[in-house]
Amino acid sequence: MTQPRLLETVAAEAYRYPLLIRRLLPQPQTTDTEIVSDGRRFSYAAFVERVHRLASGLAQHGVQAGDTVAVMDWDSHRYLECYFAIPMLGAILQTVNVRLAPAAIGFTLRQSGASTLLYHDDFKALAAALVPALGIERTVTFGGTATDGFEALVEAGDRDFAFADFDENAIATTFHTTGTTGDPKQVFFSHRQLVLHTLAAAATIANQPVGQNVMRTDVYMPMTPMFHVHAWGLPYVATMLGMKQVYPGRYDPATLLALKRKEGVTYSHCVPTILRMLIDVARKDAVDLAPWTMMIGGSALPEALAQEAEDVGIIALSGYGMSETGPVVTLARSKPGEPVEARCRAGFPLPLVDIAVDHACGGELTLRAPWLTQGYSGQDASNALWDGGRLHTGDIAEIDADGAVRIVDRLKDVIKTGGEWVSSLELESLLMAEDGVAEAAVVGIPDARWSERPVAFVVRGAGPAVTEGSLRQAVSARAQTGAISRYAIPDAIHFCEALPRTSVGKVDKKALRETAIASASPATA
Amino acid sequence: MTQPRLLETVAAEAYRYPLLIRRLLPQPQTTDTEIVSDGRRFSYAAFVERVHRLASGLAQHGVQAGDTVAVMDWDSHRYLECYFAIPMLGAILQTVNVRLAPAAIGFTLRQSGASTLLYHDDFKALAAALVPALGIERTVTFGGTATDGFEALVEAGDRDFAFADFDENAIATTFHTTGTTGDPKQVFFSHRQLVLHTLAAAATIANQPVGQNVMRTDVYMPMTPMFHVHAWGLPYVATMLGMKQVYPGRYDPATLLALKRKEGVTYSHCVPTILRMLIDVARKDAVDLAPWTMMIGGSALPEALAQEAEDVGIIALSGYGMSETGPVVTLARSKPGEPVEARCRAGFPLPLVDIAVDHACGGELTLRAPWLTQGYSGQDASNALWDGGRLHTGDIAEIDADGAVRIVDRLKDVIKTGGEWVSSLELESLLMAEDGVAEAAVVGIPDARWSERPVAFVVRGAGPAVTEGSLRQAVSARAQTGAISRYAIPDAIHFCEALPRTSVGKVDKKALRETAIASASPATA
Repeated sequence: MTQPRLLETVAAEAYRYPLLIRRLLPQPQTTDTEIVSDGRRFSYAAFVERVHRLASGLAQHGVQAGDTVAVMDWDSHRYLECYFAIPMLGAILQTVNVRLAPAAIGFTLRQSGASTLLYHDDFKALAAALVPALGIERTVTFGGTATDGFEALVEAGDRDFAFADFDENAIATTFHTTGTTGDPKQVFFSHRQLVLHTLAAAATIANQPVGQNVMRTDVYMPMTPMFHVHAWGLPYVATMLGMKQVYPGRYDPATLLALKRKEGVTYSHCVPTILRMLIDVARKDAVDLAPWTMMIGGSALPEALAQEAEDVGIIALSGYGMSETGPVVTLARSKPGEPVEARCRAGFPLPLVDIAVDHACGGELTLRAPWLTQGYSGQDASNALWDGGRLHTGDIAEIDADGAVRIVDRLKDVIKTGGEWVSSLELESLLMAEDGVAEAAVVGIPDARWSERPVAFVVRGAGPAVTEGSLRQAVSARAQTGAISRYAIPDAIHFCEALPRTSVGKVDKKALRETAIASASPATA
Repeated sequence: MTQPRLLETVAAEAYRYPLLIRRLLPQPQTTDTEIVSDGRRFSYAAFVERVHRLASGLAQHGVQAGDTVAVMDWDSHRYLECYFAIPMLGAILQTVNVRLAPAAIGFTLRQSGASTLLYHDDFKALAAALVPALGIERTVTFGGTATDGFEALVEAGDRDFAFADFDENAIATTFHTTGTTGDPKQVFFSHRQLVLHTLAAAATIANQPVGQNVMRTDVYMPMTPMFHVHAWGLPYVATMLGMKQVYPGRYDPATLLALKRKEGVTYSHCVPTILRMLIDVARKDAVDLAPWTMMIGGSALPEALAQEAEDVGIIALSGYGMSETGPVVTLARSKPGEPVEARCRAGFPLPLVDIAVDHACGGELTLRAPWLTQGYSGQDASNALWDGGRLHTGDIAEIDADGAVRIVDRLKDVIKTGGEWVSSLELESLLMAEDGVAEAAVVGIPDARWSERPVAFVVRGAGPAVTEGSLRQAVSARAQTGAISRYAIPDAIHFCEALPRTSVGKVDKKALRETAIASASPATA
C-alpha cells in the first residue's frame, strides 16, 4: 500500500505523551475514598505521597532504571505502592508467587535477575535460604518485630520525587506462569500494555448491566493474590478510578467476610475454590452477602456454583484470561431474565481484543490484543505461543449466537476416546450438577483399546450420598438423551476429601492423572 | 537516568499491536442493537459490512493511503461509516464545517489538500462553486434525486476487503477550529490519539453516578454535529460499546424530540443553545423528557439552564474541551444531594489527563493528554499552543476542594478594570440568574481611565420585564455583599432579540465587542 501520512507538522515543544504507569495515578486525588490495609487507612493524597517517597527511598538505596525489584508479600497497601513506585522508576517489578515450592521460588527469582528483594517477615526463613545463592544485592524486610525496612524507606524518601519520562515499551512487570508441566515460564508486560489493559478493563467492567458492574462508588477488595497477574489488573483500575480499596493480607475466609462487612466491599474477584469457601461460611452463619459482585477466573465457573453464590447474595460472573494475557480478555454478562449460565461463559471480548477460533487447530481460541506477553524469557515456548502471529490460548472455544465466547475445554484436557472427543469440562459440569456432588474433575488416561478413557474424581457435598454407581447411572442417562457421548461414561469414579490444586488454585490435573493411572486396575487398563 | 529495559525478548511472530481505528469496531458484532439514520436501520453486522464495502469502493475509485477525503454531510450513518472507512484505509478524513461562510469553507478545503469530496445534495451549489478552484479530483454525491453515488460505492465494494496494519501515528482526521479571530486553524489527530480518547471517554462516562452515566443499553444520539471534533468522540465510544445509535440528520428541535421519543434516546450531547431550544419545545408541549442525560460543552452550562433542564427531565452535565483537545478532557458529575451547580463545572479530568493551573499566566489551565493536537497546520500558532511543553487552553481555571476544575473565564475575556480583574463569565451568570433574563453576554471595551469597562448584552425571557436600571441595581446589590467587584457593574446593558453566534453556536464576542464600542457614548467612553 501507499504510505499513510504520519503526525509530522508538530509544534517544537508539543508533548509526545508516553503511556506510563504513573499516568494511572488519579490527579487531582479524590478526597472521598481511602485505601484500607493492615488496619491502616490512607487517603489517596497520602497514598500518592507514599508512592513518591517509596520510589525516592528505593533510588537512594541504589535501585536504578532497568533493575529488577522482587516482592514477596500478601495483599497489602505496600504491594499497591510497589505496583506503582517500582515501574515508575523505570525498574521492573517481579511479583513472586510465594505459594510455589521453595526450589521453584528460587528458580523464578534467579530467572528474574532481581537485585533487590522486598519481603514480608513471614518469608524470613525462605529468604534466608534463597538469597545467598542469588545475585540479590539488597533486601528490605517488613511486617515482623524488627525495624520495618519498608516504612524506613518511605520515611527517608522525598515526597516531591520527580519521575522522568521514558519509552512506554519499557518492561514494567514480570512474573511466572504456573504451568502444570516443566519449570515456571516468565512473562513480561510493558508500561504501555498495562495502561491499555487498565483502560479497556475499566471501560468494560463499568459497562456491565447493573449488579454486574463496577461504579466509582463501589468498594474493591482483591481475592486473587497480587503476585498473580497483577491481581487481574483490578488494583490499577480501582486506583485510576479513585475507588475505595481494601487489601486483605493473607487470605482467610473469616477475615475476608469480616472485611467485606466492615468496609462495605461490593466488588471482588477470585477463583471458584475461594467462592466455594465463602458460600460455605455464609451458609453456616446464615448471612446474606449482597451486594457483592464477583469476577471469577482461573478455572471455569460451574453453573451450580454461580447459582449457589446468588442464593447467598453474590453475583458471580466469569472472566477469561491467562498469565500470558495480562490477564483479562473477555468478560461474561447476563441480561435481565437470562439464566445464570450466561454468566458462566468466558463472555464478550474487551475493547481492542481480536478473537478467532482456529478450526484447523481443533477449535483453539487465538488472540491479538495490545496487552499480551510478547513471549517467555525462554524463547522456544515463545514461538509456539505466537505461532502464526496470534497468541495460542490452548483452550478450545465456541462463539455463541449472541457473540459470547464459551470455553469448551483445554486443548490438552480433551479426551480422545473411541474416535470421539469427550470434553472433560462438560463431563465435570454434568457431575457437579448432581445433588450431593461438591466438586468434580475429569482426566483422560491412556487406554490400549480406546486410545484414552475418562476417569472422574469427586468431592462429596451436601445432599444425598452419591456413589460410583449412582453417578455412572446419571451420566448414562444423559448419554441416552444424546447430551453427551456414550464414551464419556467414566471408567472409574474416585471419591476424595479435596481436589489437589496448584499454587494458584487450579485443579492439578497432572497429579490427578498420575493417581488415576496408578489406581487403574488391570481389568480396566 | 539509567535506561529502563525495553521489551526485547519477543517471539519472532509476536504481534506488535498498533492502536488503529479499525480496532474500535466491535468484534464479534453485537446482535441486539442497531444504527438508525435517514429512516433506515442497520444491524452492527450490516454496518461493519458497509464500512468494508465503502473503503473498498473508495479504493476502487482511486483513494489511497495518505490521501485526504473531505465530507460535507449532516449527522448520518454515512458519516459514521466515513469515521471508520476513510482512516482505516490509511487516508485522512477531513470533516468540513458546513456552517462556515462559503469563502471559509473554501479555505478549509484548500488547506486540507483534499483530493476527494463526498457531499450531500444540500451542498450541491456550494460544491459547484468551490470545486473548480480546488485540487479535488473526484466527488461523490448523495441524498438528492440523482443516482446515489455513496450507495453505488458501497454496492460496488468488497465486503471482505482486508485492511492493512500501519503506524498508529498516522493521521486519521483533520478539521478546522472556528476561532473568532483570523482564518480557521487546522488541527489533526492520529489513530493512536483517537483510540486512546475513545477508551478514556468510555471508562469515564460509564463511571458517572446513576442518571449521569452511559450504559451499553443506553440509546445514543449526537446533537453536536459530526463535522465538529468527531461529535465530541461519542460516535466512536458508542460504536466500540455496541450501543444503539440514532443519527438525526440536520438538526431541528421537533425532529430531535420526535426521534428521542420514537427511538428511546437516553444519552446525547449539545451546546447550551440547543438545550435551550429543547427545553422551550418540551415546555410548550408539556412533555417530560426523562430519561435523558445530556453532556453539555462548547460554552459554559449556566446553573439556571441546568435546573430548567432537570425540570423537563433532562440531566445536564458539563464536559470540557476544545477542538485542539480531541475534545473531552474533563467531565462534571454531582453526588446525590449536591446542588446542580456541581454539574456546571468543567469537572474531573479523564484518566491520563494531566491538568495544571499556571499561576504565572493568570491562572491559565494547561494540559497534557495522549490525544491533544500536536499543532496547527500553520506553525506559528502551534508553538504558542505548546509553549513550554504543555497545551495552553486560554481558559482561566480554579480547582475546587473536591478536585473538580472550574473554568473562571477565557483568558481573553477577562476584563481588566480599575486595577482589578472582572470575570465576564461570573457577571454573565449573575445576570442570567435574574428572573426575566434568558441569556446574557458580557464583553470588555477599551476605556481611557479604567483601562477596560464591562458592557452587557441581554436577551429578555419569561418573567418580569427587566430594564437596564433593574439589572444594574441587581449587580450593585451583589457588589455590596462582596460577591462581585464593584467595578463589575456594567457601563451599559444592551437588550437584543438574540446573541450573535459563531458557526458552532458559541457567542460571538468579537461581534459584540464591535457593537459595544460603536454604541458607547462619548460620555462613558
